[in-house]
Amino acid sequence: MSMQTATLQNKLITLRNNRLFEVFVVSVIIFSALVIGAKTYDISATTLTIISWLDMAITLFFALEIAIRFMAEERKRRFFLNGWNVFDSLIVIISLIPIENSEMALVGRLVRIFRVLRMVSVVPELRELLNSLLSALPKLGYVVLLMFIIFYIYGAFGAILFNQINPVLWGDISISMLTLFRVMTFEDWTDVMYETMEVYPLSWLYFLSFIFLTAFAFLNMVIGIVVSVVEEEHQRMKQETNPEPTITELHHEIVQLRKLLVDRQ
Amino acid sequence: MSMQTATLQNKLITLRNNRLFEVFVVSVIIFSALVIGAKTYDISATTLTIISWLDMAITLFFALEIAIRFMAEERKRRFFLNGWNVFDSLIVIISLIPIENSEMALVGRLVRIFRVLRMVSVVPELRELLNSLLSALPKLGYVVLLMFIIFYIYGAFGAILFNQINPVLWGDISISMLTLFRVMTFEDWTDVMYETMEVYPLSWLYFLSFIFLTAFAFLNMVIGIVVSVVEEEHQRMKQETNPEPTITELHHEIVQLRKLLVDRQ
Amino acid sequence: MSMQTATLQNKLITLRNNRLFEVFVVSVIIFSALVIGAKTYDISATTLTIISWLDMAITLFFALEIAIRFMAEERKRRFFLNGWNVFDSLIVIISLIPIENSEMALVGRLVRIFRVLRMVSVVPELRELLNSLLSALPKLGYVVLLMFIIFYIYGAFGAILFNQINPVLWGDISISMLTLFRVMTFEDWTDVMYETMEVYPLSWLYFLSFIFLTAFAFLNMVIGIVVSVVEEEHQRMKQETNPEPTITELHHEIVQLRKLLVDRQ
Amino acid sequence: MSMQTATLQNKLITLRNNRLFEVFVVSVIIFSALVIGAKTYDISATTLTIISWLDMAITLFFALEIAIRFMAEERKRRFFLNGWNVFDSLIVIISLIPIENSEMALVGRLVRIFRVLRMVSVVPELRELLNSLLSALPKLGYVVLLMFIIFYIYGAFGAILFNQINPVLWGDISISMLTLFRVMTFEDWTDVMYETMEVYPLSWLYFLSFIFLTAFAFLNMVIGIVVSVVEEEHQRMKQETNPEPTITELHHEIVQLRKLLVDRQ
Repeated sequence: MSMQTATLQNKLITLRNNRLFEVFVVSVIIFSALVIGAKTYDISATTLTIISWLDMAITLFFALEIAIRFMAEERKRRFFLNGWNVFDSLIVIISLIPIENSEMALVGRLVRIFRVLRMVSVVPELRELLNSLLSALPKLGYVVLLMFIIFYIYGAFGAILFNQINPVLWGDISISMLTLFRVMTFEDWTDVMYETMEVYPLSWLYFLSFIFLTAFAFLNMVIGIVVSVVEEEHQRMKQETNPEPTITELHHEIVQLRKLLVDRQ
Repeated sequence: MSMQTATLQNKLITLRNNRLFEVFVVSVIIFSALVIGAKTYDISATTLTIISWLDMAITLFFALEIAIRFMAEERKRRFFLNGWNVFDSLIVIISLIPIENSEMALVGRLVRIFRVLRMVSVVPELRELLNSLLSALPKLGYVVLLMFIIFYIYGAFGAILFNQINPVLWGDISISMLTLFRVMTFEDWTDVMYETMEVYPLSWLYFLSFIFLTAFAFLNMVIGIVVSVVEEEHQRMKQETNPEPTITELHHEIVQLRKLLVDRQ
Repeated sequence: MSMQTATLQNKLITLRNNRLFEVFVVSVIIFSALVIGAKTYDISATTLTIISWLDMAITLFFALEIAIRFMAEERKRRFFLNGWNVFDSLIVIISLIPIENSEMALVGRLVRIFRVLRMVSVVPELRELLNSLLSALPKLGYVVLLMFIIFYIYGAFGAILFNQINPVLWGDISISMLTLFRVMTFEDWTDVMYETMEVYPLSWLYFLSFIFLTAFAFLNMVIGIVVSVVEEEHQRMKQETNPEPTITELHHEIVQLRKLLVDRQ
Repeated sequence: MSMQTATLQNKLITLRNNRLFEVFVVSVIIFSALVIGAKTYDISATTLTIISWLDMAITLFFALEIAIRFMAEERKRRFFLNGWNVFDSLIVIISLIPIENSEMALVGRLVRIFRVLRMVSVVPELRELLNSLLSALPKLGYVVLLMFIIFYIYGAFGAILFNQINPVLWGDISISMLTLFRVMTFEDWTDVMYETMEVYPLSWLYFLSFIFLTAFAFLNMVIGIVVSVVEEEHQRMKQETNPEPTITELHHEIVQLRKLLVDRQ
């Protein structure tokens, strides 16, 4: 690496780590979010032209910003191992593709919405929060599986028994599962039940047992998260605030004291 | 027992405990679940024939698998003391019964759905999770009884007072209790209330007191579970991670130290 | 007190404390609950006559049971200091009043429903549970007051601003508060909001701020209960299961050890 | 300051701190709340006149009370640093402005409702409760921001994709976000979903993913509060009830004991 490129890289690293630069990037992201929001209102052709120019400026700025971050990275390979960097690059590259076709224009508009997510990739506190949220997911694996089994069994029952009553709600197993999710959220669930009770008067058993099972499993899930989070927080707090000697250490010292006394005799 | 049967049994035990065999059984269960789901869609006659052949193959495989597990069991009696084994055997036996009659065919289809539950009987983690869920139930016994008493009293009141207003909702005590469950889930409960308020303007007292009572009792139930689960988890964690000497042991050793000192004098 | 009455009282005390007698009383209460439930169905005149006879028998049995408990009580005054005894006596006395008038008959039927509550007065576990539920109430006093203030302020606003829009929902402050309770339970709250938004387009601010405030206050209430219950349970557990010497006691002994050593020098 | 004014101030301080005076102020506030409530009913002209006189009396009393509190304050500047004092003064001043215009009369009536909030400013327990509620808010900052980002992204998607389907629900980004809040409260959310599913059959993915994301984020928020409140309560309890020597102190004493023994040898 020549002297000159090394100097340039140092300058870019300084720029990347600059607090003001960060604030400016966040401001541009917020501004781009506002532009996205503005486009959903009925706006005049002039404003639309201004917005499309602003949009291009934002895209170019984002491209520049990622280029800076890429060049500031000492090991280029490591840059693409970071999921957020890949995400940021994709958003920019897709935004850069010129779109003529009207159908693709819709996709282009939708991709631009994800720019708001760049907020999470840029603000470290949000990134940490999202990571902590995602880290709680695997613990729930088997409970989610159990809930899916409950949904699948009730869905199959519903699709077989209530298919003739209302095919819109119970047409096949996937529609039945959507209907059951609706029942779980208590959204007009009695309408669904009263309809089936006209044919099968005992079908309230189906709905009540489903509600109890899912509510109970869901409750267990929530408690599972609460318990694990509280434990972790407790553990973390203990390690931070407690440089106290453990009882084991005390025990050790008392044993030594005793040896001292015994040896002397 | 002859040498030959003993060798066969050993082979079967090896097969049963084989990890690959377990994975294969789970795969067949998932496949059988997909077959059950597929049948709820509108499918061509050809596909239906294929599915019925697949169904037969699955039934035979399950029969074989249970036979292997039964023969691998050293004490045959103990096999049927396990609830899951009895459940698995019943599912297979009922699936084996040839069905001609169309009404029985429906029952046959419904029984096949329970095959999905075999997932729980085969995967140890799910079995444990279900056991832990069930173990929380008895603790709730008296709270459930209290809630039932509240429902029964309000149900009787509703059936006597509002019977004339809307017999569909308040016809007898069991229908009233179903209506009250609906009120508890907040599902269109104001429609129910406004209707009775036209006759008894003070009936909002009935509904609000019911909502507060059940919400409060339910909350207490939830907290009851949370507290007991947290305590148990805490206790379990302590025993696992804490081979520290207890304060009682420390106390004991200090007392011994003192004796040593006193004795020497 | 003569010898004879003393013997009779002893016999009554034995009877009252008899486990079988308790089980029999509970059975009669359950039976009386079933009779109350049965009366809400359409039943033939013959069954109705049988039920009225059964009803009389139950009333007489309850009167007898309270008489036994009253006579078994050594200090008669103390009997009426117990709230449950007063409740039981009232239920029986009102049931004994002969009713001719049809309007009073309704009251008589309603009073009989409270017999089911005798379950709580007879089964000690239920009585304890109810007491623990009631003991959690005073802690919530100020939060309930704060929520009432929120409801009152929003109710007054609603009654003044939305009165012209829909007098059925916002007629006066009490109706407004009932409507707000409905909004808090999320029951068709958007219908209420969309109606007012046609006149005041910013009225979504009124509804969203109300939902956030009450949800937040309610959450705080729930957490308040959880925390206090967990703490109490923890405290209770500690005292029961922990006959370990405290750290203070350990400290005391070490200090004594030291004295011993120092004194000897 | 002359002797006379000093004596007057002392008298005012005594009056302000008098328990009876406090009870009287609270009574007047409750009475003013009742007057506000009464005005929302249909009342005769006579009653209305009486109420307007009562209203004036209450305003004057409040003005007097604040004057007393202001004059009782030793450092006049500090009086207006307290937010509650400023709030109380504003309420009184606006109430004192004479209103002729009918539109301003409405504003006058609305401002009078805030008098009920004076309850919080006068009763110390309510003031503390509100402070503790508000102190929990900043902790939630980033979670609220994350939820807003989720709402914004889904709102932009909804406004672009479903705008043609139902402009009342998806007209622009702000209306879309209101609709999404409605979906989050499960209020007739299936009606919204079924409507979009007719055009985009896969749009259930949009709604279900939104429900899971917001429910999960909301859950995390709730748990966040629970954990922090429990920890604080725990910490507070420990400091209050635990004058026990710490393990560190025990350790220190054992070390000293050892020294004593070693020194003697």
